[in-house]
Amino acid sequence: MRIATYQYQGRRQVGLVSDDGSTLHRLPLDADRAQRGALPLIEDHAAGTAWPAPTGQPVHLADVKLEAPLPLPRRNLFCVGRNYHAHAKELSGSVFKNNAANPQEWPIVFTKVPECVIGPGDEVRLPGDAISAQIDYEAELAVVIGKAGRNIARSDAMAHVFGYTIVNDVTARDVQMRHQQWDLGKSFDTFCPMGPWIVSADALDGSRTRVRCWVNGELRQDAPTTDFIFDIPTLIETCSRGITLHPGDVIATGTPAGVGMGFSPPRYLKAGDRVRIEIDGLGTLENAFA
Amino acid sequence: MRIATYQYQGRRQVGLVSDDGSTLHRLPLDADRAQRGALPLIEDHAAGTAWPAPTGQPVHLADVKLEAPLPLPRRNLFCVGRNYHAHAKELSGSVFKNNAANPQEWPIVFTKVPECVIGPGDEVRLPGDAISAQIDYEAELAVVIGKAGRNIARSDAMAHVFGYTIVNDVTARDVQMRHQQWDLGKSFDTFCPMGPWIVSADALDGSRTRVRCWVNGELRQDAPTTDFIFDIPTLIETCSRGITLHPGDVIATGTPAGVGMGFSPPRYLKAGDRVRIEIDGLGTLENAFA
Repeated sequence: MRIATYQYQGRRQVGLVSDDGSTLHRLPLDADRAQRGALPLIEDHAAGTAWPAPTGQPVHLADVKLEAPLPLPRRNLFCVGRNYHAHAKELSGSVFKNNAANPQEWPIVFTKVPECVIGPGDEVRLPGDAISAQIDYEAELAVVIGKAGRNIARSDAMAHVFGYTIVNDVTARDVQMRHQQWDLGKSFDTFCPMGPWIVSADALDGSRTRVRCWVNGELRQDAPTTDFIFDIPTLIETCSRGITLHPGDVIATGTPAGVGMGFSPPRYLKAGDRVRIEIDGLGTLENAFA
Repeated sequence: MRIATYQYQGRRQVGLVSDDGSTLHRLPLDADRAQRGALPLIEDHAAGTAWPAPTGQPVHLADVKLEAPLPLPRRNLFCVGRNYHAHAKELSGSVFKNNAANPQEWPIVFTKVPECVIGPGDEVRLPGDAISAQIDYEAELAVVIGKAGRNIARSDAMAHVFGYTIVNDVTARDVQMRHQQWDLGKSFDTFCPMGPWIVSADALDGSRTRVRCWVNGELRQDAPTTDFIFDIPTLIETCSRGITLHPGDVIATGTPAGVGMGFSPPRYLKAGDRVRIEIDGLGTLENAFA
């Protein structure tokens, strides 16, 4: 099952993507609830409340504007740093300078503010060189939590997963590093493209899919999620230690090697660049930078 | 002006505290809006919408249960680390191990999830030794944003302040440090006591007040906010660089020296401890740990 949030006839709607990917079938939600995209459906699912049946004629995907499936997540997104060995290595001298003292025993978890989420095709706004001239991409598989829980054991963790989506964890590298804590450099307006939809956990095995990212058509990132340092159950166990996770929470699982900062010299994004992310079984997420 | 959120006759209400501090005068809000405490009033203020006039008979403060003025902030709270020189020194060998490489040129900003906010008198739940046995207090003046803005200049920053409240930035030290990024160790359920109310910016000069904290009656923290490394305008400028701040956002300004981790050996909190914070011109916030 794939759940999409989209604009159609001037309104935000939520619907199911057909098996062949060509049409959307609307799930009737009050306008207020539809503003939060798939979030109320995930909350209903957690509460055991049946979803409304799809209604009306399916519409062609080409006739809608896809939006982020969660246009405004319920709180800051949890995001994981350093979760692929090759990426840990490429930034070991800069972002991950504490590697020696902390030999990857624990995941690094930071956040992005919910208001920086944008949809497929939306423009990422470069903040201007006076604010940051080191804007970078990070292609990531994101886990969407379905069932609330605290102190979730690894063995129970997958029962708390509603599904998956793609995020681009856009980052201002200079801001990320100079403040030591990363939240600011990760949370600039428009810095979290998300989409194209949420794929339910029964329809995708997040533990063995493939994450790829192109910049202007050039393949930059390409890794299987079997390369994770910390698997999805471990990330859920980690984020829920002492902290209640809620339906609709998002955990972005970290990015593969190949980010702009990893090149010598670094290859940061500039106006006109297009970043396209594809995750097998999920779809593609493409955004221009302006 | 002091705005409080409180339980009275089984309902959450919002009201103004009388000048002598003895009574509360209710501002009539729909039940849905009152659930967010002072937040809808701050949003109305930003939108230029007049508040409803106080209604009914004032009630005695002794007859209500005070709650956090913002029981569920709109997104993660922004929190500042290392903002008093003496505190920077007391944790220089542990939390702030990068001091030499980064000589306090930039504020450290991390976040706490909104759901960890609790009110005056509510119990902070110790997570159990298996999760963390290093629970610490941090008394802080918190700024409540009133007017939205991005890239706010220092010189304009104070026009964006709605008012102030107190937070206890409760922290699991071992969790804070082992994940390198601090958000997890700062966000355990119940780890953000807030209150007793919001004092409007015209009624308190946050730049020159005094923050004190007692544990079981023993004075542990005592510093004037004139000791800030980064003043409030600088913090607002920092948090808003590239990031739109919204009415109701909270920026906790960091804690003075005297936290439990700063003692040798450390003096972490245990069940039965009571932490009381007082900020001149604001009031007191007291919570038991259980």
